[in-house]
Amino acid sequence: MGKETFGFAAYDKSGSHKPITFQRRDVLASDIEIEIIYTGVCHSDIHSIRAEWSDNPPYPLATGHEIVGKVAAVGSDVKKFKVGDFAAVGCMVDSCGTCEECKNGMEQFCLNSATFTYGSPLRIEGHGCTEHVTQGGYSKTIVVREQFALVVPEKLHDQLAATAPLLCAGITLWNPLETQCGRDLSGKKLGIVGLGGLGHMGVRLGKAMGAHVTVISRSHAKKKEALEGLGADDFVATGVEGELEKVKNSMDFIIDTVSAKHDLAPLIACLSFRGKYIVVGAPEKMQEIHNSWFLYKSISYSGSLIGGVDQTQRMLDFCAEHGVVCDIEMIGFDQIDKAHERVLNADVKYRFVLDVGNYQVPAN
Amino acid sequence: MGKETFGFAAYDKSGSHKPITFQRRDVLASDIEIEIIYTGVCHSDIHSIRAEWSDNPPYPLATGHEIVGKVAAVGSDVKKFKVGDFAAVGCMVDSCGTCEECKNGMEQFCLNSATFTYGSPLRIEGHGCTEHVTQGGYSKTIVVREQFALVVPEKLHDQLAATAPLLCAGITLWNPLETQCGRDLSGKKLGIVGLGGLGHMGVRLGKAMGAHVTVISRSHAKKKEALEGLGADDFVATGVEGELEKVKNSMDFIIDTVSAKHDLAPLIACLSFRGKYIVVGAPEKMQEIHNSWFLYKSISYSGSLIGGVDQTQRMLDFCAEHGVVCDIEMIGFDQIDKAHERVLNADVKYRFVLDVGNYQVPAN
Repeated sequence: MGKETFGFAAYDKSGSHKPITFQRRDVLASDIEIEIIYTGVCHSDIHSIRAEWSDNPPYPLATGHEIVGKVAAVGSDVKKFKVGDFAAVGCMVDSCGTCEECKNGMEQFCLNSATFTYGSPLRIEGHGCTEHVTQGGYSKTIVVREQFALVVPEKLHDQLAATAPLLCAGITLWNPLETQCGRDLSGKKLGIVGLGGLGHMGVRLGKAMGAHVTVISRSHAKKKEALEGLGADDFVATGVEGELEKVKNSMDFIIDTVSAKHDLAPLIACLSFRGKYIVVGAPEKMQEIHNSWFLYKSISYSGSLIGGVDQTQRMLDFCAEHGVVCDIEMIGFDQIDKAHERVLNADVKYRFVLDVGNYQVPAN
Repeated sequence: MGKETFGFAAYDKSGSHKPITFQRRDVLASDIEIEIIYTGVCHSDIHSIRAEWSDNPPYPLATGHEIVGKVAAVGSDVKKFKVGDFAAVGCMVDSCGTCEECKNGMEQFCLNSATFTYGSPLRIEGHGCTEHVTQGGYSKTIVVREQFALVVPEKLHDQLAATAPLLCAGITLWNPLETQCGRDLSGKKLGIVGLGGLGHMGVRLGKAMGAHVTVISRSHAKKKEALEGLGADDFVATGVEGELEKVKNSMDFIIDTVSAKHDLAPLIACLSFRGKYIVVGAPEKMQEIHNSWFLYKSISYSGSLIGGVDQTQRMLDFCAEHGVVCDIEMIGFDQIDKAHERVLNADVKYRFVLDVGNYQVPAN
């Protein structure tokens, strides 16, 4: 049977979106159906549809993996949700559940490949679904296994739109802060390189965890908003001579959110002994390092990729407790192309959220 | 007053050695004087005298920082040694003792600069010393603060020559294995890249700590000696197609001892999730990395530099307990130039040790 849903999909690598109508699978025993209210716009969506991450994206493709909505139906085995609850979905909708990585709560590294929210081969086929790959949150409804849906804590209910981007931008910063920096950052100095969707979450989460947070940006353009708007403790511009020098050897952790190739030497020099440089962006090109940077201060360079399901729930609970949400700009569901263009021009503070719930699907 | 000692020093960057006679400082209250029996030959000695690490080495310079000998005199406050004991000196002879790094037992990172065994400005000046920089173990005697001298455990007394290189090669591998790999490596897979003075210590220490050790070398030339001589569990050659592929995604830790630029991609690919790639060599040139390697497996890349004094003692005690020493080739004290040449040609298994004790200083 399945149930029809409406969305916007890319049909080729041009980057433009057109309406799509397709069938979600039936709500199985452990599934919930979510009526999507808001979906955040992530740069990954753009990379995916423009064939920047794979030569042959599975068109038509409706992206979007920062999803919040209201539970519209629950399967017979569902325990965590009831109809009417607020639920969220992040970057994954399924995984094998049996491998070492899944058992350790790191479903993003599932040895049998996680099922990502869009563009992944289906793990559960048929049951009325008309698609061969997963379709994401650029759509009015989604059906997902209860286990991969997150509970939206009550304190976030009145900030649903600003909650949506936590599901990717939030967890991307939460994971390294929790697992590599130790979560309690009181007395620690944290540097955040790049102040965009990811970076501003780093500032918010780092401050909430007790860190002294320094934003490292190219110019002074974002200084005021970093210090006053986001509450960063310090701001240094890589392009202003002498500024980085002032914070040399001072930081315990640096999280680098920049996804274009850049000079690492002056940034890594900001770390103190045994400092950790953590990257969450992947520039297309190779970058250069020198072993002496790592030897003479016992420094490490590491990566982090989104986070597991339980981790994502912990992040949401922490954000509710500490009042951490994203700074967003709301935009109409049918304004995706415009949103993407502006993201590409870095013209958003700091995340677009599509107003899916209020969009009226045109008759016919 | 001071006391005259004889050694061999480099007088310019040619790399050749000539006799040198100079005065060690008087034995102060917390000092011991060591009659040197053996000194290991480290590649650092060669870099230093050939001006590869600084433009103007302080010639004449007697290098050598893998020193074992017998205590010939002790100051009035000395508690750890008595005359006739075996003692050892590694890469450092002093540090400020008051900074955060010293207090944490990481004197190599002393914020006021550690005093290295050779070529460093003196921390204790005068008292009969004729030099302005430290002179190392390419000499018959050395005077050092008790605190920076190591006790040679009894079980190593009959292997004094093979013990000497533990003081640099040994601690260089011990430090990452202890602090970054967790010391107990049972059930863990360890890769050692490069099988020279450092690499063979990595195999020995890794095995003694319980790891499954794989040697990663360029060709099969060292396969037999790695497996049979050193007891490695596996051996793969980077230059033999398909061999690295077989160990892909399998290792918990890799320690890379190579100090020439090399392709990191296929090596880092051998790490499993959350694996650590640790470098102890510093190629002169920049090396290339790609963030995706780190993101998709949460991998880290880090450096390690020798080790602190207490750590060095722990290493010696462990080596005594587990019968770990270096494979060495003994060479006459006046054969330094020949030893250096052969080191440069990688023609040594695995460390030269100078027979200082048996060398008779020519009359006049």
